[in-house]
Amino acid sequence: MAVEIVEVGPRDGLQNESALVSTAAKIAYIEALIAAGARRIEATSFVHPKRVPQMADAEAVMAGVPRRDDVRYIGLVVNERGLDRALAAGVDEVNVVVVATETFSERNQGMSVADALRSFGAISGRARAAGLRVTATIGAAFGCPFEGEVNPQRVAGLVKSCVDAGADEIALADTIGVGVPADVARLIAVSREVTDLPLRFHFHNTRNTGYANALAAVEGGATALDASAGGIGGCPFAPAATGNIATEDLTYALRRSGVASGLELSGVIRAAALIEKELGAEVPALLGRAGDFPGGSPETGV
Amino acid sequence: MAVEIVEVGPRDGLQNESALVSTAAKIAYIEALIAAGARRIEATSFVHPKRVPQMADAEAVMAGVPRRDDVRYIGLVVNERGLDRALAAGVDEVNVVVVATETFSERNQGMSVADALRSFGAISGRARAAGLRVTATIGAAFGCPFEGEVNPQRVAGLVKSCVDAGADEIALADTIGVGVPADVARLIAVSREVTDLPLRFHFHNTRNTGYANALAAVEGGATALDASAGGIGGCPFAPAATGNIATEDLTYALRRSGVASGLELSGVIRAAALIEKELGAEVPALLGRAGDFPGGSPETGV
Repeated sequence: MAVEIVEVGPRDGLQNESALVSTAAKIAYIEALIAAGARRIEATSFVHPKRVPQMADAEAVMAGVPRRDDVRYIGLVVNERGLDRALAAGVDEVNVVVVATETFSERNQGMSVADALRSFGAISGRARAAGLRVTATIGAAFGCPFEGEVNPQRVAGLVKSCVDAGADEIALADTIGVGVPADVARLIAVSREVTDLPLRFHFHNTRNTGYANALAAVEGGATALDASAGGIGGCPFAPAATGNIATEDLTYALRRSGVASGLELSGVIRAAALIEKELGAEVPALLGRAGDFPGGSPETGV
Repeated sequence: MAVEIVEVGPRDGLQNESALVSTAAKIAYIEALIAAGARRIEATSFVHPKRVPQMADAEAVMAGVPRRDDVRYIGLVVNERGLDRALAAGVDEVNVVVVATETFSERNQGMSVADALRSFGAISGRARAAGLRVTATIGAAFGCPFEGEVNPQRVAGLVKSCVDAGADEIALADTIGVGVPADVARLIAVSREVTDLPLRFHFHNTRNTGYANALAAVEGGATALDASAGGIGGCPFAPAATGNIATEDLTYALRRSGVASGLELSGVIRAAALIEKELGAEVPALLGRAGDFPGGSPETGV
């Protein structure tokens, strides 16, 4: 079994940290991630710098990262102005968020869900015409901080709309970290009724269910999982909470479960240590503190 | 589906915290846990006070806890002297640890595994004669900090020895937090080849796999799971690491997975807050920080 880990530390991780990290440090973090085996990296987001000052250097980051045929960079965009910037900066893929509930969509993106879907269609069409792959991320697919539970059928409807509007991949995001493996299985089932596109998942470990969810997603056939080295990122709706599932902790769990990810644990721990130093606060990831446990499976050693 | 949560915060939790907590605070913690629905509590251990000063007040704790027909107290014992004390203190059950590897057994209990099994037999016989239920906990069943991987067949052999020596329940402990759900399934399978006794699991979240393991254990038919309110406890072999899986985080995951545990989340969070204050340091559990869902969004207040 195998799954691709999409490294989102440089984007979703740093975007939700209060500390501002220099462009040079972001690039060093990305270089360390590539050295650890990361091959698909959400490097930055092209949003208004007043809204997300942590990502104000998007162009400079993209200008500074190493360009290799085997590494793809993703830029997050929320509108066509962002797409213009992403295209000019030379990203390989774009990720566009459509939030599952009206209240969260209005607060997060200042538009209704219907408008977000229209915007996704416009972005998707132009990005694909430019040769870029397009991911539609359904935000708050497992629950909304304002509206509470989200009906899986509503999520499936949004998945279908995004597929029809030209997505190459669907990502389902547990933005506030409320889901459990049973929710993952349910969302995979309803999504599979409307599409056979690759499914990617984005988990936060806000309530300590993120790793169980990640393993359940792999079990259910997900092709990609988002994670951030160090587990940085937090949750804007629960200020004291932890962030994305950590790449190193996920790498450990996958390796011991016999699932190939292409990542090398000690390298990811090094990347996390680097960004931990920049942020000046202990990261939530546990592998850096606990240490690896003998290279793998009980019988053979991976 | 249902599973019993064995609250081990007062024993395994406090035993591994450097702060010494007063007897009165321990009793208040236990009372808060009972108010939250805890009905089976590992209240203390009867070991030499020089080895584990945190548990030196075992008799005073047992003399002070509320006695109710619906609440069972477990005392951990490692030898017959400990059993004498546990019997005199009036515990309802004893838990005896047999470590899976020679090196860990020598370091932890100062005896070989064979001697530990003989000791278990002696303790078990006398405890059962006194009308107490006896649990055999196989320590380091998922991996050893000194010897590395532990062969599941070795664990199964120890399970069989403990069953033959009179255990009423078998607990499999991931003492250093290295396992993944596949390990849980494998250990359940090999244990089921040698016994149909109730299986209990003890997970540490040292490498962020504890909750996935707990859900996997329930899925595999485990009847009981250990957890500590607050997730207190740490790991003596990885000083910076987190401790037992947290009762409140487990309660959340189980409730949302449709598994009844009898615990009420807000009550467990209150018990954890109480012990957090005593320890003077933030506990690893996340539910107290993130808040329940839906019963409490960040906006509306929990």
